Amino acid sequence: MVSRIGREIELSPVEMGSRLGRNVKINMASGSPDPSTIPVDEIGRAYEEVLADLGPRSLFYPGAGGQQELIEEVNKYLPAIGLRSKDPIVITSGAQHAIELLSKYFLENGTVVVENPTFVETFSAFKLRASVTIPVTVDGKGISTDELELVTKIVKPDLVYVIPDCHNPAGVNLNEERRKILVELAEERDFYVIEDDPYRPIAGCVPAPLKNYDRSGRVIHVSSFSKILAPGLRIGFVVAPPEIAEKLSLMEQLDFSTSTLNQYVVSRLLRSGFILSRTKILPEHYRKKMKVLVDSLTDAGISEFNQPSCGFFLLLDLKRDAHRVLEEAVRQGLAFVPAKDFFLRGGETMARLSITVPNEEQIKAGVEILKRVIRG
Amino acid sequence: MVSRIGREIELSPVEMGSRLGRNVKINMASGSPDPSTIPVDEIGRAYEEVLADLGPRSLFYPGAGGQQELIEEVNKYLPAIGLRSKDPIVITSGAQHAIELLSKYFLENGTVVVENPTFVETFSAFKLRASVTIPVTVDGKGISTDELELVTKIVKPDLVYVIPDCHNPAGVNLNEERRKILVELAEERDFYVIEDDPYRPIAGCVPAPLKNYDRSGRVIHVSSFSKILAPGLRIGFVVAPPEIAEKLSLMEQLDFSTSTLNQYVVSRLLRSGFILSRTKILPEHYRKKMKVLVDSLTDAGISEFNQPSCGFFLLLDLKRDAHRVLEEAVRQGLAFVPAKDFFLRGGETMARLSITVPNEEQIKAGVEILKRVIRG
Repeated sequence: MVSRIGREIELSPVEMGSRLGRNVKINMASGSPDPSTIPVDEIGRAYEEVLADLGPRSLFYPGAGGQQELIEEVNKYLPAIGLRSKDPIVITSGAQHAIELLSKYFLENGTVVVENPTFVETFSAFKLRASVTIPVTVDGKGISTDELELVTKIVKPDLVYVIPDCHNPAGVNLNEERRKILVELAEERDFYVIEDDPYRPIAGCVPAPLKNYDRSGRVIHVSSFSKILAPGLRIGFVVAPPEIAEKLSLMEQLDFSTSTLNQYVVSRLLRSGFILSRTKILPEHYRKKMKVLVDSLTDAGISEFNQPSCGFFLLLDLKRDAHRVLEEAVRQGLAFVPAKDFFLRGGETMARLSITVPNEEQIKAGVEILKRVIRG
Repeated sequence: MVSRIGREIELSPVEMGSRLGRNVKINMASGSPDPSTIPVDEIGRAYEEVLADLGPRSLFYPGAGGQQELIEEVNKYLPAIGLRSKDPIVITSGAQHAIELLSKYFLENGTVVVENPTFVETFSAFKLRASVTIPVTVDGKGISTDELELVTKIVKPDLVYVIPDCHNPAGVNLNEERRKILVELAEERDFYVIEDDPYRPIAGCVPAPLKNYDRSGRVIHVSSFSKILAPGLRIGFVVAPPEIAEKLSLMEQLDFSTSTLNQYVVSRLLRSGFILSRTKILPEHYRKKMKVLVDSLTDAGISEFNQPSCGFFLLLDLKRDAHRVLEEAVRQGLAFVPAKDFFLRGGETMARLSITVPNEEQIKAGVEILKRVIRG
């Protein structure tokens, strides 16, 4: 006997892209933050400090729900990412683990609404447990709340999963008006909204989180230190209504997967103000790189994309089969992620281009390759 | 809508015990290794080394399945814990995460056999997914294979979950004869055996793992660096038949919870021989402490327990309600874990005593308190 998850799990195109990316000159496939921004020295000093301060205690089992010290520091940090909520915080092994916990908590068959496109790796956690998954269009202003409202007149979703800021892969922000409508809909039609928001800390100026509009415990905010600090620590958090947060904490007894030591390290880097200082620098760093990509594409006469608002990704319509384009691009030294699997409807010609790993010169060279391949 | 796991998850008595343990003088409730054995300095130096050597690369996202460097080091380490297998290795966030992955892979309703008693925290992962859970008696030689054989004549289990070495909470080893019978039964009756073996690295001389007898891909070996190194790193591994290992790796895309940096740290401590050197020292350390507990109990005229073979735990029959005894013991400064929830049948009067946190004097003082409470 094998479970549905065991039978249906597949290699994600992101994982495949990241394997491809290691073997080419220009890696526009990666979802990792820019390696040049990863603060290796500061992280090293934080490990030293924690081990010296806490000794063996820093290496005990993590309690379910997260270390109290980190929970308190995250609480003080929330205003820096514009989050106003008195709901409890649950520490997780990054946002991906948080989504897995939430999916495991909510879904047993059931109905989930996701954006079209959505982030394929988090989507898997929902897809493998839901009996119905409904895609709702994302345009330049994020998820279409008109379409969502229509959907909710036909079926009652259990969950709506959105990436409101620096959308992966679409690059857009959900605008303020739609945020309000989405939360009102959740209250009216009795569903939960999972706000997956790992890019917010590096987003700069974006609308307030959905969670800020939540008056009736319908929104669950998921965040991460992967983009603002480093993904290899595997530390993120959830802000959720008390009864849900309590259950998520208990469910962490099933995996106990979040490193105690790494929790203390992030806690110290929050306390010292180091992470805060990065929320002021990194948005501009990524904005500059994205401008290079957008300008290069425009100069090359390639224009079939939404203007990305922030974050790591630009979603480009190649106007031809993206997998075929990728094959040739890889031969010429460029990797990206074909975005078909991010879509429940369409997407065969879409490509997700990332600006994190390549430097400015490499971004320009990557676009040159792309241009040659498309025109070729 | 909330899933079955979401509805049924509860606070584990181990978690409760570990919270209690923080507030008393003598903590015999903890499942953590002896804090005095946690090599804080060596771990600190390993972090320094990895960060200096690999820089940002040590802080990227973990690939699903684990870092290749660590997989290779684990492969070289297997003989040190007596494991002979050519099956692939999957790195996990500790053994608990491994059990959660395995349960998620195998069980969707279905039938699972567990030991009576079994480790309550890993058991939860199975219990919350199985439709039938069947307890099979553990005696001084481990799980009763006679009883198991009888059970398999009535129902076909999908999984049999055992802790063959230094059983938690029973303290016993499964003897060699029964190991062979168990693996033969698995082949004959077509079920999988999960061999949860986190204590093996600190066990000293114990029979060969079940995995060594596995000729038809029926045994999955789960191991951990929590006892031999430190639980706070959250690194463990699975050795499983190729088709299962492949699926477990893919399923790690759903949580990506295993810290990349911590994987490299364990890898370096394996490569340097440091972990190997501990497999030669720690068994004797724990054996000495266990002898103090056994001798103190015997001197106190308390004799209702199996002689523990190795590991951290002794399972004692208090001959009265263990929760009531705990209440009074806590008032006198001693915490332990009432073992009722480790049993599917019986166990109301059973207590799990741990030797890891208290030193020898505290173990003696703990037994004195226990004696007063039982007799009082």
